[in-house]
Amino acid sequence: MKMFLTILFTFALLFSSSQASVQDFCVADLSLSDTPSGYPCKKPSTVTVDAFVFSGLGVAGNTSNLIKAAVTPAFVAQFPGVNGLGLSTARLDLAVDGVIPLHTHPGASEVLIVIQGTICAGFISSSANVVYFKTLNKGDIMVFPQGLLHFQFNSGKIPALAFASFSSPNPGLQITDFALFANDLPTELVVKVTFLDFAQVKKLKAVLGGTN
Amino acid sequence: MKMFLTILFTFALLFSSSQASVQDFCVADLSLSDTPSGYPCKKPSTVTVDAFVFSGLGVAGNTSNLIKAAVTPAFVAQFPGVNGLGLSTARLDLAVDGVIPLHTHPGASEVLIVIQGTICAGFISSSANVVYFKTLNKGDIMVFPQGLLHFQFNSGKIPALAFASFSSPNPGLQITDFALFANDLPTELVVKVTFLDFAQVKKLKAVLGGTN
Amino acid sequence: MKMFLTILFTFALLFSSSQASVQDFCVADLSLSDTPSGYPCKKPSTVTVDAFVFSGLGVAGNTSNLIKAAVTPAFVAQFPGVNGLGLSTARLDLAVDGVIPLHTHPGASEVLIVIQGTICAGFISSSANVVYFKTLNKGDIMVFPQGLLHFQFNSGKIPALAFASFSSPNPGLQITDFALFANDLPTELVVKVTFLDFAQVKKLKAVLGGTN
Amino acid sequence: MKMFLTILFTFALLFSSSQASVQDFCVADLSLSDTPSGYPCKKPSTVTVDAFVFSGLGVAGNTSNLIKAAVTPAFVAQFPGVNGLGLSTARLDLAVDGVIPLHTHPGASEVLIVIQGTICAGFISSSANVVYFKTLNKGDIMVFPQGLLHFQFNSGKIPALAFASFSSPNPGLQITDFALFANDLPTELVVKVTFLDFAQVKKLKAVLGGTN
Amino acid sequence: MKMFLTILFTFALLFSSSQASVQDFCVADLSLSDTPSGYPCKKPSTVTVDAFVFSGLGVAGNTSNLIKAAVTPAFVAQFPGVNGLGLSTARLDLAVDGVIPLHTHPGASEVLIVIQGTICAGFISSSANVVYFKTLNKGDIMVFPQGLLHFQFNSGKIPALAFASFSSPNPGLQITDFALFANDLPTELVVKVTFLDFAQVKKLKAVLGGTN
Amino acid sequence: MKMFLTILFTFALLFSSSQASVQDFCVADLSLSDTPSGYPCKKPSTVTVDAFVFSGLGVAGNTSNLIKAAVTPAFVAQFPGVNGLGLSTARLDLAVDGVIPLHTHPGASEVLIVIQGTICAGFISSSANVVYFKTLNKGDIMVFPQGLLHFQFNSGKIPALAFASFSSPNPGLQITDFALFANDLPTELVVKVTFLDFAQVKKLKAVLGGTN
Repeated sequence: MKMFLTILFTFALLFSSSQASVQDFCVADLSLSDTPSGYPCKKPSTVTVDAFVFSGLGVAGNTSNLIKAAVTPAFVAQFPGVNGLGLSTARLDLAVDGVIPLHTHPGASEVLIVIQGTICAGFISSSANVVYFKTLNKGDIMVFPQGLLHFQFNSGKIPALAFASFSSPNPGLQITDFALFANDLPTELVVKVTFLDFAQVKKLKAVLGGTN
Repeated sequence: MKMFLTILFTFALLFSSSQASVQDFCVADLSLSDTPSGYPCKKPSTVTVDAFVFSGLGVAGNTSNLIKAAVTPAFVAQFPGVNGLGLSTARLDLAVDGVIPLHTHPGASEVLIVIQGTICAGFISSSANVVYFKTLNKGDIMVFPQGLLHFQFNSGKIPALAFASFSSPNPGLQITDFALFANDLPTELVVKVTFLDFAQVKKLKAVLGGTN
Repeated sequence: MKMFLTILFTFALLFSSSQASVQDFCVADLSLSDTPSGYPCKKPSTVTVDAFVFSGLGVAGNTSNLIKAAVTPAFVAQFPGVNGLGLSTARLDLAVDGVIPLHTHPGASEVLIVIQGTICAGFISSSANVVYFKTLNKGDIMVFPQGLLHFQFNSGKIPALAFASFSSPNPGLQITDFALFANDLPTELVVKVTFLDFAQVKKLKAVLGGTN
Repeated sequence: MKMFLTILFTFALLFSSSQASVQDFCVADLSLSDTPSGYPCKKPSTVTVDAFVFSGLGVAGNTSNLIKAAVTPAFVAQFPGVNGLGLSTARLDLAVDGVIPLHTHPGASEVLIVIQGTICAGFISSSANVVYFKTLNKGDIMVFPQGLLHFQFNSGKIPALAFASFSSPNPGLQITDFALFANDLPTELVVKVTFLDFAQVKKLKAVLGGTN
Repeated sequence: MKMFLTILFTFALLFSSSQASVQDFCVADLSLSDTPSGYPCKKPSTVTVDAFVFSGLGVAGNTSNLIKAAVTPAFVAQFPGVNGLGLSTARLDLAVDGVIPLHTHPGASEVLIVIQGTICAGFISSSANVVYFKTLNKGDIMVFPQGLLHFQFNSGKIPALAFASFSSPNPGLQITDFALFANDLPTELVVKVTFLDFAQVKKLKAVLGGTN
Repeated sequence: MKMFLTILFTFALLFSSSQASVQDFCVADLSLSDTPSGYPCKKPSTVTVDAFVFSGLGVAGNTSNLIKAAVTPAFVAQFPGVNGLGLSTARLDLAVDGVIPLHTHPGASEVLIVIQGTICAGFISSSANVVYFKTLNKGDIMVFPQGLLHFQFNSGKIPALAFASFSSPNPGLQITDFALFANDLPTELVVKVTFLDFAQVKKLKAVLGGTN
């Protein structure tokens, strides 16, 4: 029995000595300044299992809007447990005729998993400018490479549900329409850099709340 | 109209010049040798949208076995489109009483998304040796940091379904029981490095097909 | 003198033993398949100084086109010496009224150095959707973070010249107009994912050579 | 002489201008929160050579315990000078019959250098489940890939000494027995996820101080 | 119109929810401790376009010194906008006969762009010890792989101007002469580790202000 | 018993399906072209434990030379098992008065472990130009940050033995004297970029076999 206690003692020593630098995980302390590699870590001793579990994706997003769609993110801001771990998740709800408009994630690749319904999804390669799109059924997955323009829309007759996984805790989201028509980028400038008609830009700025 | 053609011409030139090095994606050519960063890429001109879509996760795995569970991977070997993109996916089916035994992924962190049923999941931190586990319901997600021992089992009364996302196209999977009892690691050696009883090791080796 | 020869001998031995794995650089062998980390390397013994020097940026690009601008890349496809080294370069010529339309680089951040003339440049942040733009004079530099929509145009009365540096040998280039209007992405689909008017899409597809 | 002073002056200017961002090294300030890339740096002006030297590995660890072995780490917590530099070190003392039980390093690969005695060491690959083990003599080195289960034990008749190097300042250490039997992971749960007999688990929990 | 307002509302919600974790960029807060991945970020809401523009490279450096050359850096310390973005820039002015002495950048590869004049530049590979050098004319670019000794000097009859880009916001700069002769490294030690004559070392220490 | 066989069967299936992409390790196939991330991998089925063990460091290097020192590397070229694993090793033998001349490793940080004797070691920081050096005794370790000039010499009265670990399988080695005086870099050029006296350069070129 004495031998047994000695093992215990040895192991305890072994671990106590390296305990200060444990970095199995790095739950984000959102109250501190972000860094290029992610948020500083909460002290491990203050972390419970709840830091690693997120329940916000169990509820459907509200699709009572024009795009008839909703994205519910579980990125580092909502789910601090993924900080530093190289991945995150989001829930997509698409009502009938719902659409996630053309967008990019500047900081991550994405895999979409269709759980219910039928979704048409696609992306456009950059320099070669090739379009890749396909209709996805329940259980199908599709990958969207980092930084490329892509879209998803409900191509079926029932609401669709999907989950998206990202290769970063903080993938970012840049919706092209939003970038062009929902801020104070001057209309003349939008016209200059997109070749869209002035009236078209004004029309969409009115819809999306853009000024100038 | 001449002007219009000129734009077209300009863009075409612009793109043709950089076309040779397009690397928006790198669909794995599994016939070539792997490298530390992943497989060499198929020629983009031979790639179609099917390289980016995988349909194998739509079908339930066969859970008619002792663990009453099945894992269906969509890693780079099954889904070459994720090569080089930093993520992959798998489907988990757990019949009632099903369990995914204690295991690690040496090369990736994991996020589990529960689609149906109730799953109890947990992981154990390394040096601090703290256990984090919780019962997850439909829609809950949990993150398992890279390289740490973790497990999942069906804690409900109906079959459970979940999808796992990984922060690598090739996360690896090391089931502790399999490593100890399902190969030719000599029994004496297992005893020596685990302190398990000789009879216990022999018993599980018999079950799992281990020799020596 | 014997001592001196011995040094020489020692050094020669020291180096010959590790010569096989020299990887100070990795000049791209463009004839082999790309990998997620870049092209396989040419044998160092076949590499001369010319692999590390590129003279193609000394000549102005042809700006006799509608956008009155030209981009001349020195990415890995044109300049194999940058393979694996984490950076590349391009030359921008903007005639009076020239414009580089809205675009992203999916794989790199960019720094622009104005050598001659006056350039107005800007980018749009993703989730926060803030526009950052400014007029740059000779000698000014501006940074454009990876994956974000940005643009440059000549805002002066003389031709402008600038060099762009990128944080990757293969930054990619996705011009939004080109992605939407210069390929076979169906018009209905463009309308669906951008909210642009059908006529607007058709008009620009005609200009840029898009079909469907 | 005036010329000489001018050189000096020029160099001084050159360096003073970039001095604020010197990051040749980043000695860990363990009083601040860790980040995913390591600890924040001490101000370089407060750092002396002692930050880069560690003398704790010169003394044998205490092997008067059941495993007859001791591991003395020089990870970032003990040796803040390795912070951000991608490597660390540890000393292994194995008395006759000493053993380092089955374990993984979730965050690093390891190279073992045998300095004295004879050590039998091995690792088990993940998905392919192959065992690689060999007896190492003085001067032999062996590499253990990141995250894989491995072990070392003294297979000779004299005490053995070895040094281990790791590809991270903070490799982590998860001893399988410790994870299973030395914390509050409920016995029923251990049985469920390992298929070990209940009595076996209880027996080892008693030895290693586990509860529940 | 109501529909339009709803879009706006949806988008606003979508973005407000992930706003806290926006990390399109990470402008350095130089008042906080550096980390291995760069400086902590300024709060995005306090950042204006001026953080992304640097005007210090528009003015020639002072070359009235012995080396007849000047380097003006736009590294993270001078240009906080490049923090975390993987690149930076510097201006090189070389008067007639000007020279940038032998040096390395421990943390980055470099691309040099010649804007005016003629520059002879070269680097030396490490283990194979091969010299690569060439005369560069206006518009030529040359790449210098990370960590290798290299040099540049004006080989023409007019002043030369060049810009250098680096694959890190903080490339570092170690001028060999400065390391050997401009600090307190004891003369005996310099002799021992370089085989230079004692008198030679003393002579250059006198020029460059070295002591001991 | 039937149940047991079923487990076995399940596990076998589980593993066979992902076997093709096993990348626990990537033993270098030195017959193929290197890539920026390392050599392509040998087929795992052809790899034995001998790929992970290297016995070449058990024998002292030959120090019967002017520097009275020898470095025996176990980099990827000598020890293909470390390919892709982020670390490597070397043996240093220093006879009495032996010295490893001033050098850098362009691709790795280093930790030195003194096994026998007394070694004086130091490095010089880059922009700040500070010298850090200290006498190391048996068991002491010292870290040398990536790319910085450093040196080691025997400062005791008996032969010294040390092992060096590196944070890369291919750290590179650039000895300053060798780069300056042991190749065909023209003497005038060496003088120009180092300010050394012409005679000094000629003298050392004669010793080290340099030409021109």
